[in-house]
Amino acid sequence: MPRIDRLFSVAALTVGLLLGTTAHAETGHATATHAAAAKRKVIIDDDGFALMQAMLVESGDVDVLGLTSVSGDLWANRVTAMDLRGLELAGRSDIPVSAGATFPLVNTEAQTERWEALYGKLTWKGAWMKNWVEPTQQATPPYYGPNDPVTLAWGDPAHKPTGELAANFLIRMVHKYPGEVTIVACGPMTNLALAQRLDPQFASLAKELVYMGGSFNPRQVLDNRSAADFAREFTNSPRREFNIRFDPEAASIVSRAPWRHITVVPADPSTATQQTPELIERLAKVASPDLARLIRSLPTGFPMWDEIAAAVFLDPTLVKQHERLYVDYETQFGPSYGDTLSWREHYQPGLGEQPADVIETVDVPRMEALIERLMARSRKP
Amino acid sequence: MPRIDRLFSVAALTVGLLLGTTAHAETGHATATHAAAAKRKVIIDDDGFALMQAMLVESGDVDVLGLTSVSGDLWANRVTAMDLRGLELAGRSDIPVSAGATFPLVNTEAQTERWEALYGKLTWKGAWMKNWVEPTQQATPPYYGPNDPVTLAWGDPAHKPTGELAANFLIRMVHKYPGEVTIVACGPMTNLALAQRLDPQFASLAKELVYMGGSFNPRQVLDNRSAADFAREFTNSPRREFNIRFDPEAASIVSRAPWRHITVVPADPSTATQQTPELIERLAKVASPDLARLIRSLPTGFPMWDEIAAAVFLDPTLVKQHERLYVDYETQFGPSYGDTLSWREHYQPGLGEQPADVIETVDVPRMEALIERLMARSRKP
Repeated sequence: MPRIDRLFSVAALTVGLLLGTTAHAETGHATATHAAAAKRKVIIDDDGFALMQAMLVESGDVDVLGLTSVSGDLWANRVTAMDLRGLELAGRSDIPVSAGATFPLVNTEAQTERWEALYGKLTWKGAWMKNWVEPTQQATPPYYGPNDPVTLAWGDPAHKPTGELAANFLIRMVHKYPGEVTIVACGPMTNLALAQRLDPQFASLAKELVYMGGSFNPRQVLDNRSAADFAREFTNSPRREFNIRFDPEAASIVSRAPWRHITVVPADPSTATQQTPELIERLAKVASPDLARLIRSLPTGFPMWDEIAAAVFLDPTLVKQHERLYVDYETQFGPSYGDTLSWREHYQPGLGEQPADVIETVDVPRMEALIERLMARSRKP
Repeated sequence: MPRIDRLFSVAALTVGLLLGTTAHAETGHATATHAAAAKRKVIIDDDGFALMQAMLVESGDVDVLGLTSVSGDLWANRVTAMDLRGLELAGRSDIPVSAGATFPLVNTEAQTERWEALYGKLTWKGAWMKNWVEPTQQATPPYYGPNDPVTLAWGDPAHKPTGELAANFLIRMVHKYPGEVTIVACGPMTNLALAQRLDPQFASLAKELVYMGGSFNPRQVLDNRSAADFAREFTNSPRREFNIRFDPEAASIVSRAPWRHITVVPADPSTATQQTPELIERLAKVASPDLARLIRSLPTGFPMWDEIAAAVFLDPTLVKQHERLYVDYETQFGPSYGDTLSWREHYQPGLGEQPADVIETVDVPRMEALIERLMARSRKP
């Protein structure tokens, strides 16, 4: 049946499920309308396609208005293709994909190499990564140019991006649904910064921003090789996190924009999570065959950075510890370029930086159970 | 009897005690000579006088060549007076005191206020402190100018400083005893940086540098009001520590100088320590009446930053966790001015920054027992 119908029929159940009520768990047209009204509108802005996107598009509680791609871990053209193909495998090619920024606002690959000569080697450089500094369990991804042709291991997408640029799509959506759109951003913030400078109303017209980015005081929690490898990203630079470090100026623009609410999912809660082979298999088993194929192709050993963002958006009760802090990012081109800046109330400079709910720890078993329930929804007729 | 005699008579005992041997625990002239030869030469460079100094001057294992004052928590003229008076109360006015730098190399009080307007309030500003940002259990120290006359609660010293400037004294001593002098530095590094730029041989002629400064990833360990108050210094700025932040350029100069060995005692191990009223009383009880008076005047609730530096110098087995890292400090006048920079091997830029042993945790009960043993020595005839 058309996907839109399926969406309504499961929405009633899911709203009840996720809101912890049974009031909406009725059937019939009135309920579908009610559920549609209650569905939270989301745009996913990211530098890849993985479990996080699958979680949100499978949730009946959420109306994913679109995906916007951005360069970060990969160049944007590769991410756009992954978004299109990922949505096809999730059976959600009805969701539009808009291509986002290829380059950060100020930062460049060449500038980053000069920075490293002055200030020391970065552990992870995303699309600019050529080699790990030390032997690392995770494979080095292939190195591409920003315009290299894209062929995906998942198969190439049959669908095309909208033709509307990501920043324009973001602006258009918050004007169409003022105060209703949550932006879940899990890559560099280039698109969001461009949107804010294109339209100063952008941030204030959104409902909220939930983003994965920044790093406060993370500690290695899990005792295995992958966890130790990833700890190298923060042990000697506790305030540095890749999404922000790739485009620090964008992150500062976004952090100083007048959002109604900001939720920050920094590196900190991710150190208690890991995309293990066991978890991947557990999720693939319950998913539809197509989505299972995508899930089984995901790299293992990684902290579940983005999935935490989707999870706490879907179910805020997963949050175990959080703190309200003013947050901004360093834009001076020195050793701390891109570092997270935070202040308790009374200490902040008051230059536009916003208070944000910073997530410190989450309930990992319950989060994994949520992801499993969401993946299982992909099998439903 | 003259203090120098007492020194020799106890030295034999202490060297045996601290080195864990009995070979030196003999009597007579030969032993005194042997012990004197085995005594480790130390210069204490600091911005105050408290337990740390008392520990080193009471240790028979150590030959304190002199104290050098520097501005930091207090202006240098106040520290010079405290050094002189402190040594009198410890019965060690034979140790020379040299007055050190009044002002940091580049940083100033006015510049720090402009910095705060741009980047947020500092928790502690030392000699430049006028008010706590938030209510704080620790008293705000009186505010003085750099040349205000000094009157001490301990009584004013009868002795005078040497007349030789601290940097010159430091240089002269490492030339007099090449490869033999340990510098224990627990304040801003202005004197050491001046010495290094006055004489490029300075660092390489010292035996080692042991300093309290920097901050890596500290966490609040103790659960009380003072510990929570002090956690405000690092929770939102894990890489900022006052000694370094007062004179970042000096800290970077010193960190890039060619020392034979560097031990860093950052804020990290201090969060498990506290100068409690109980500890103060325990130490005062065993000390000489004069030293007990000084000990009872010390403020309570403070982490024992400097005492850790003296303790791990006196007994390296107190160190529970440490790591060898390359260390430098940020000198760009941005939000991270003065922040600690560190790199594992292979990641460092190689611009002169030195590998250092960074102390992460210490055995606190054994450290307190060591301090107690040392204070008890002040009563010995």
